[in-house]
Amino acid sequence: MTRFQLEIRVVPRPGLLDPEGKAIQSGLLSLDYPDVQEVRVGKLLLIELVADSPKGAMDMATSMCERLLANPVTEDFQIQILEENENSE
Amino acid sequence: MTRFQLEIRVVPRPGLLDPEGKAIQSGLLSLDYPDVQEVRVGKLLLIELVADSPKGAMDMATSMCERLLANPVTEDFQIQILEENENSE
Repeated sequence: MTRFQLEIRVVPRPGLLDPEGKAIQSGLLSLDYPDVQEVRVGKLLLIELVADSPKGAMDMATSMCERLLANPVTEDFQIQILEENENSE
Repeated sequence: MTRFQLEIRVVPRPGLLDPEGKAIQSGLLSLDYPDVQEVRVGKLLLIELVADSPKGAMDMATSMCERLLANPVTEDFQIQILEENENSE
């Protein structure tokens, strides 16, 4: 088995309302950053898991996103393998 | 002035407790993903702003992180310029 470090980016779909982003933008405006034109907020998930292959790790992560990590109606996700270490166990 | 798209990653410092990550990990366990060994959760901020140079954009983003976007005690941040468009205005 190999240990993988994955990064999953979950971001609101373009065009959808992003209340957290709007709140941050208005906070930045009141701190005097008028040059900020848009803020969108997503989640960054750093996950360590063991799998037998890169494909196995990607498939597991995709399934986790579809079932728990991302909202299929409002969010998109991207998965990237950051690191891969042979496990001697 | 140039319009920049920046990505800011705000992640909990290594070694610090990350309750949201633990909650997601236990959710994944109960959905039968026992191979997940660690989950850490950060924020991903996608920001559009205008500045006169890449350095100006990076400086503005650093200052925003220090003042509002990241918790200086518990979080680290990384800023990256994704795109840069000349503005004809």
